[in-house]
Amino acid sequence: MADVQAILREVQAGRLSVEQASELLQGAGKLDYATLDLDRARRTGFPEVVYGAGKRIEQLIGIMERLREHQELVLVTRVSEEQAQRVLERWPDVRYEQEARLLISSRKPLEPVRDGYVAVVAAGTSDWGVAMEAAWTIRCFGSEARVIADVGVAGIHRLFDRLEEIRGAAAIVCVAGMEGALASVVAGLVDKPVIAVPTSVGYGANFGGMSALLTMINSCATGVAVVNIDNGFGAGYMAGMIHRQMQA
Amino acid sequence: MADVQAILREVQAGRLSVEQASELLQGAGKLDYATLDLDRARRTGFPEVVYGAGKRIEQLIGIMERLREHQELVLVTRVSEEQAQRVLERWPDVRYEQEARLLISSRKPLEPVRDGYVAVVAAGTSDWGVAMEAAWTIRCFGSEARVIADVGVAGIHRLFDRLEEIRGAAAIVCVAGMEGALASVVAGLVDKPVIAVPTSVGYGANFGGMSALLTMINSCATGVAVVNIDNGFGAGYMAGMIHRQMQA
Amino acid sequence: MADVQAILREVQAGRLSVEQASELLQGAGKLDYATLDLDRARRTGFPEVVYGAGKRIEQLIGIMERLREHQELVLVTRVSEEQAQRVLERWPDVRYEQEARLLISSRKPLEPVRDGYVAVVAAGTSDWGVAMEAAWTIRCFGSEARVIADVGVAGIHRLFDRLEEIRGAAAIVCVAGMEGALASVVAGLVDKPVIAVPTSVGYGANFGGMSALLTMINSCATGVAVVNIDNGFGAGYMAGMIHRQMQA
Amino acid sequence: MADVQAILREVQAGRLSVEQASELLQGAGKLDYATLDLDRARRTGFPEVVYGAGKRIEQLIGIMERLREHQELVLVTRVSEEQAQRVLERWPDVRYEQEARLLISSRKPLEPVRDGYVAVVAAGTSDWGVAMEAAWTIRCFGSEARVIADVGVAGIHRLFDRLEEIRGAAAIVCVAGMEGALASVVAGLVDKPVIAVPTSVGYGANFGGMSALLTMINSCATGVAVVNIDNGFGAGYMAGMIHRQMQA
Amino acid sequence: MADVQAILREVQAGRLSVEQASELLQGAGKLDYATLDLDRARRTGFPEVVYGAGKRIEQLIGIMERLREHQELVLVTRVSEEQAQRVLERWPDVRYEQEARLLISSRKPLEPVRDGYVAVVAAGTSDWGVAMEAAWTIRCFGSEARVIADVGVAGIHRLFDRLEEIRGAAAIVCVAGMEGALASVVAGLVDKPVIAVPTSVGYGANFGGMSALLTMINSCATGVAVVNIDNGFGAGYMAGMIHRQMQA
Amino acid sequence: MADVQAILREVQAGRLSVEQASELLQGAGKLDYATLDLDRARRTGFPEVVYGAGKRIEQLIGIMERLREHQELVLVTRVSEEQAQRVLERWPDVRYEQEARLLISSRKPLEPVRDGYVAVVAAGTSDWGVAMEAAWTIRCFGSEARVIADVGVAGIHRLFDRLEEIRGAAAIVCVAGMEGALASVVAGLVDKPVIAVPTSVGYGANFGGMSALLTMINSCATGVAVVNIDNGFGAGYMAGMIHRQMQA
Amino acid sequence: MADVQAILREVQAGRLSVEQASELLQGAGKLDYATLDLDRARRTGFPEVVYGAGKRIEQLIGIMERLREHQELVLVTRVSEEQAQRVLERWPDVRYEQEARLLISSRKPLEPVRDGYVAVVAAGTSDWGVAMEAAWTIRCFGSEARVIADVGVAGIHRLFDRLEEIRGAAAIVCVAGMEGALASVVAGLVDKPVIAVPTSVGYGANFGGMSALLTMINSCATGVAVVNIDNGFGAGYMAGMIHRQMQA
Amino acid sequence: MADVQAILREVQAGRLSVEQASELLQGAGKLDYATLDLDRARRTGFPEVVYGAGKRIEQLIGIMERLREHQELVLVTRVSEEQAQRVLERWPDVRYEQEARLLISSRKPLEPVRDGYVAVVAAGTSDWGVAMEAAWTIRCFGSEARVIADVGVAGIHRLFDRLEEIRGAAAIVCVAGMEGALASVVAGLVDKPVIAVPTSVGYGANFGGMSALLTMINSCATGVAVVNIDNGFGAGYMAGMIHRQMQA
Repeated sequence: MADVQAILREVQAGRLSVEQASELLQGAGKLDYATLDLDRARRTGFPEVVYGAGKRIEQLIGIMERLREHQELVLVTRVSEEQAQRVLERWPDVRYEQEARLLISSRKPLEPVRDGYVAVVAAGTSDWGVAMEAAWTIRCFGSEARVIADVGVAGIHRLFDRLEEIRGAAAIVCVAGMEGALASVVAGLVDKPVIAVPTSVGYGANFGGMSALLTMINSCATGVAVVNIDNGFGAGYMAGMIHRQMQA
Repeated sequence: MADVQAILREVQAGRLSVEQASELLQGAGKLDYATLDLDRARRTGFPEVVYGAGKRIEQLIGIMERLREHQELVLVTRVSEEQAQRVLERWPDVRYEQEARLLISSRKPLEPVRDGYVAVVAAGTSDWGVAMEAAWTIRCFGSEARVIADVGVAGIHRLFDRLEEIRGAAAIVCVAGMEGALASVVAGLVDKPVIAVPTSVGYGANFGGMSALLTMINSCATGVAVVNIDNGFGAGYMAGMIHRQMQA
Repeated sequence: MADVQAILREVQAGRLSVEQASELLQGAGKLDYATLDLDRARRTGFPEVVYGAGKRIEQLIGIMERLREHQELVLVTRVSEEQAQRVLERWPDVRYEQEARLLISSRKPLEPVRDGYVAVVAAGTSDWGVAMEAAWTIRCFGSEARVIADVGVAGIHRLFDRLEEIRGAAAIVCVAGMEGALASVVAGLVDKPVIAVPTSVGYGANFGGMSALLTMINSCATGVAVVNIDNGFGAGYMAGMIHRQMQA
Repeated sequence: MADVQAILREVQAGRLSVEQASELLQGAGKLDYATLDLDRARRTGFPEVVYGAGKRIEQLIGIMERLREHQELVLVTRVSEEQAQRVLERWPDVRYEQEARLLISSRKPLEPVRDGYVAVVAAGTSDWGVAMEAAWTIRCFGSEARVIADVGVAGIHRLFDRLEEIRGAAAIVCVAGMEGALASVVAGLVDKPVIAVPTSVGYGANFGGMSALLTMINSCATGVAVVNIDNGFGAGYMAGMIHRQMQA
Repeated sequence: MADVQAILREVQAGRLSVEQASELLQGAGKLDYATLDLDRARRTGFPEVVYGAGKRIEQLIGIMERLREHQELVLVTRVSEEQAQRVLERWPDVRYEQEARLLISSRKPLEPVRDGYVAVVAAGTSDWGVAMEAAWTIRCFGSEARVIADVGVAGIHRLFDRLEEIRGAAAIVCVAGMEGALASVVAGLVDKPVIAVPTSVGYGANFGGMSALLTMINSCATGVAVVNIDNGFGAGYMAGMIHRQMQA
Repeated sequence: MADVQAILREVQAGRLSVEQASELLQGAGKLDYATLDLDRARRTGFPEVVYGAGKRIEQLIGIMERLREHQELVLVTRVSEEQAQRVLERWPDVRYEQEARLLISSRKPLEPVRDGYVAVVAAGTSDWGVAMEAAWTIRCFGSEARVIADVGVAGIHRLFDRLEEIRGAAAIVCVAGMEGALASVVAGLVDKPVIAVPTSVGYGANFGGMSALLTMINSCATGVAVVNIDNGFGAGYMAGMIHRQMQA
Repeated sequence: MADVQAILREVQAGRLSVEQASELLQGAGKLDYATLDLDRARRTGFPEVVYGAGKRIEQLIGIMERLREHQELVLVTRVSEEQAQRVLERWPDVRYEQEARLLISSRKPLEPVRDGYVAVVAAGTSDWGVAMEAAWTIRCFGSEARVIADVGVAGIHRLFDRLEEIRGAAAIVCVAGMEGALASVVAGLVDKPVIAVPTSVGYGANFGGMSALLTMINSCATGVAVVNIDNGFGAGYMAGMIHRQMQA
Repeated sequence: MADVQAILREVQAGRLSVEQASELLQGAGKLDYATLDLDRARRTGFPEVVYGAGKRIEQLIGIMERLREHQELVLVTRVSEEQAQRVLERWPDVRYEQEARLLISSRKPLEPVRDGYVAVVAAGTSDWGVAMEAAWTIRCFGSEARVIADVGVAGIHRLFDRLEEIRGAAAIVCVAGMEGALASVVAGLVDKPVIAVPTSVGYGANFGGMSALLTMINSCATGVAVVNIDNGFGAGYMAGMIHRQMQA
């Protein structure tokens, strides 16, 4: 879609047939039940990620098989226990992060490839799983992720104890349920972008996380942007992208 | 409704006629357009309060006139500039608190009659009017009110600067709009009841204060209870009642 | 965080090392999966409470073990049958209040330590569990709790029969589902603070308790503040705190 | 649409032409900008009512003119001051009920034509206009309407003072804003149908009356049905219909 | 609460002791887990009804036992299969209406005691259970109930086929889910009060019946009032009360 | 209901008895538990469709039996695995489309009877079932349906690869969950009507598909109309109707 | 974006320069404050339409000027009185449809260019403006539009009177506010696609048209699709497109 | 709050008095009506920003005066025409960006201080003001902002024309109202973080921007985070912070 003039020049010069040019402008790689986006890594800097929830086991394995051929890294989110077991039977080298509900298939070890780190700050123990999802996504980007858990505002000194570590990060993911106040407090204390993840933790009038989402969207502090409820992956992706930018 | 047996015994003893007893069980004092609740001070410890919004000027003056006859204190809330002017023309002794939108007609000066004080903590300058409404209501209860303004969580050190004063209060009214996180932070730091008032300050997805209300209702900190959006009067009433209890 | 000047003076006088002072300003006591707030009793007047829902059994026991070492009282809310059984196997002295879904581990018997009592008024039999949660929380504060159940407004004489007892309380917790009208009626009849708890009891357009919450937040009666849906613990905590204040 | 066989028999018998029959099955009376439902009185027992809000003055007068020709009674709801003035200039015999925002054009005086009465019970002075709308609609049905105002639950003895009068009614319209608790309390005390009208009176989280509507829909008392917010006309219509039924 | 003067006169005359009078003004009959409202039949014209959902079997049987002693009719709503079986084992004379989820214990056969009937009109086959709940409640009032099912507006001629029967009723209960349009269409065609019951039948954006509820509340037709979602009992109660009034 | 004059003339001429005419104006065909709309094919161009969800197996078979007698085509939507098995046991000729959750009983093979085709464009693999429901409904109309799956906007080149095929369609059904942006993009690129189907695919703040529904309703592109969440049948019906119109 | 291969072949053949091809693949015509989509007529079959609301008068005139040069037809929606006056001063040949709030600038007279017509069916007189917006949009497509107004379901015979005319249409736009039931009733009676437009007409719990929107989305009748609230233009566009298809 | 140990050491060494240390740990600079956060630039990397909406002119000028003394840059958001005029009278050097509703008082010219740029991509002309607010905020950070307007998805080729420029940015702010689909499309095409700003542009069921907010929160594309409705400032702040990080 992109280098239109470049491709056109190749055609003009006769170095590219009409069919090839058309192909280049249109992409490749289909499966019966899915149109894989093998070009995504080049386009967005990160390979296609598979949303595991609700996929039948054959579908999941079929998609992973094709992606493993073309991509160095295959990440599957929202994986159930059962899906994980079946995939691990098939490919014992795949890593299953249970709390994060992630499957990670990587040709290279997940080691930091750049300086600095991203902080993942979580309000309560119940937010742990979402925080882990963010942390492992960040690691897939080649960044270090440090998780700072259980520092919610009901006992705010716990947060201040860890403040230096949070301030030292290149970007901050902030995970909180219930009233989600942590994001505003953190953003008021740091000079780094804060990606806020509301979680569905809570009860009564929390509306499955909508309360925390509204809190974060209405934050009185600047430097906060918000992803979907329980979307640790999305927040980790955003933070990983920001960190990667810093040393691009 | 209350001392049924006592009244019945008076009737039995012939000291009270059936009509008088019936009257006692049923109350008095009507106006054409309102049934004044002159018994309220005895029943709830605070005289009837007039909700000014939307009342025509003659109605307002009529009601105030009758109440001034029977009550030491007449409090009118949500008063418009125009209503205030007209009332002040009629009774120059009435006090008009413009920011709080209150009219106060009191036979005695509003001076503290008990030890201690109630703290009114407000997040932003835009929450000032609601905080004032709470403060003056507290003063009508005969309590001292100390207002601590503009200490929102975006610059949390401002709150810590005033923490000793807040902790010293008998009860705390906490006023905040936008995401309303202040209530949770305060409640986590004190051992006194916190009455939280969400305000309609903010924009976008704040839904006229609903965002702050949900934040406060879902607070992860204990010792917080919530009143309606912008209801400074209600919060001041609750806090005044708690303070009064302490030295009953 | 608090006595900054006091601590600084200790440092100045050489009576406190920098490390000790830093520690004092920053707190202690971590677990792998939780940052316990052992300082909370001093700060808020009540020790840290554990939210049981969704915690794995080892986590729950680990947290309780640590808290039992440092706190006279350990309270766990929203406990499942299974969690309770496992905890009781470990510590037979722990008290399990099934209807209230509470675990209470207390070094001292839960007996009233002050005069007066808190009334817990509930509208229907289905609100019983939430009322019990409030009542036991109040008892953990060292206050007497009297439960007055099934006095909803559909048969309002039932409420009047118990009115003297309600009026005699230092504070009132009012528990109601469906349309939640009980809180307004009670608040109009008493001179004590009413903490209203909406419950999720009802069906159809009750939106899991949101209908009752809105009713209570919009109450035409003064002296009402509201906690989250089904949050008997929060209401009991608020009422216990108010009662404790009265004889502080 | 109704007496199909009857009309068909008239055609069969030659007493009715095809055109006449067709006409009978299809109605009459069109205007350029409106299809008047002149048949409604026969079908529903009450003539077509005009919704005044937003109608241009010529439209309103045009519609009223046509209806006055065919109907004994013409009722216009939600009339603005300006609309009223212009209509009264045109037809000085039309009655304008300002508080109720109604125009009533009746060939006969509006006097009760049956025994008994309908009670219109209103919670606050701000609910007065809606109560008046209900009362005048009831009078248009030929029933007596008694308005019992300002008896909200914040001072519930005011309601008990009027209870006998309320109980004596054939049907009860109950008008309340804010939390709308009055409907439940009244329905628990009477053996007559209660038509509840939520009003938009209130502020904050009352959502323009939605709070009161939910309260009434979720009422724990039986014998309550609800109409739209501020719809005094609709409630009066329902109650008038019920009363009319009683002596049909 | 009611005949205050009458009771007072009895006391004055010495025919009633203070204790007896007090008792009369305050009611009777408590159970450990419930405050039964044995006075309700006298006050509202229908004995107390038991809401079965969520009650433990011993509670349910205990309550029914007490009520059977004092009331001619005991009605239990929202009964599960299991509850029903256990109750029928205990009292084989109790009637279980499975589709309506009702238990009916009546000393007299449920036969019409007055002329005329109430029509229960239902839109789809899935609304059948709610319609049955309305119908049996009406029968408990001593009225005849005629159910006219599956006449939704998608095939409106089905409604017209039954129109005469609907028009002949003293009152109409109209049950519909999905978009709930049936109530408006019926109300436009009859001169009797229509009690509309939205049902939770539907999917997607029906919000568990809220869509149908809003439709009915906003009806452009007059003579419609609405009860809670799936509340067939409430609608039947209202209609039964209206019919009873007609021949009072 | 329709040819009123024609039928009346037949009666006038004596060629039709009153009973026959009445019958013609009123329809036929009832079952105990359902009022089948056998006339629907004539009236709306498509025979009555059965909504399978929640129907008991005997009901379903009874309804299908009657419809199979009168209709060439019987379509049942939202069929469970168990319902399907039981129906197939009874009539092995019935076709069960598992992914689409449809039962199709057709006397003639489902082959295209007109030129052109309808495109069913789906955003993700999880939207497949809803897309299939749309496709098979279109085929029941005698139109060809081409499904173009997994072309969501996150990799928009996948859409452009299939653009010519989409543009060639007579009408387009567009199925998308999550944020539902696909409908706007497609509608901006084609000159054919787009029927948008929001799906409940997603999590967090997607509110069971409400997010996608709002997106589609607010589309900035013209030529989009929307059906209920997950309503593949409704969209296919609409598209089939449009295609049929083209060659009427 | 479209004829990629064709354009590429032109480049290959040397008949098109790289710049020209690039231009063709990328569009033209920018203004300082807007990127006009001059290619839209070719792509979607209808030229770009201007949304007038909120545009400053110079912007509006600037955009119209450019579009008038390139397009046969320029349509501006949501035009205020003031905007219209200023545009008419500039170009007296522009047509201003006040009720529809449209400006139409057409080089050719707006006369039907194909057989058949589209019916615009509106429930109440207040829906007239939205109906007119739909009608004039249809006329811009070169189709005849017949408006059938004030046939809401409260007097359903008015609808039946016009049924033949409605059935004869190629497509039907159905405009209704309040509860919006008209769409379901119409769709159950015809064999043509119904485009439903909810309007914001109504009050109370109509939520600015959301009530009617939900009604239409949840319609129990098939063959209904919905556009945004008050979006007469969108519905007319959809219907015009369907009619155009029929004779393509 | 931060360098606790450092400050303590200064005290220990006698180089800092207790009062000074206390001051350092607590901040400075109060006004009567506001607690200015003069420390913010050091803490968060950007000086305190003033929210202009609703501030009285004296308040605004008072706050600006104090901030101008202490800060190089003073930024005021949501400024009305009238506020702007009064401020410009006072300080003619202040810059007023009308469309962005910003006042900017800067000691240094706003010129880029680092390589690269941030792209601000806006869907429609009505989103222009919000886009400008983002752009000027970015410029206050010392970054270049390039605005790419009117490239909404209804004519998606307009977006592709500008794609290289968008891809070249360090971060992307994406501004869109109505259905807000632009953010998903852009994020699927780039490898840079996308900050999405929903706007309140639209009508009907857009709920003042909530529709676009939900779209963006539920985006199927990765690398998107969202700020409040119409919050161009917040998005620009976030993007400026990210860009600044890149060359820190």
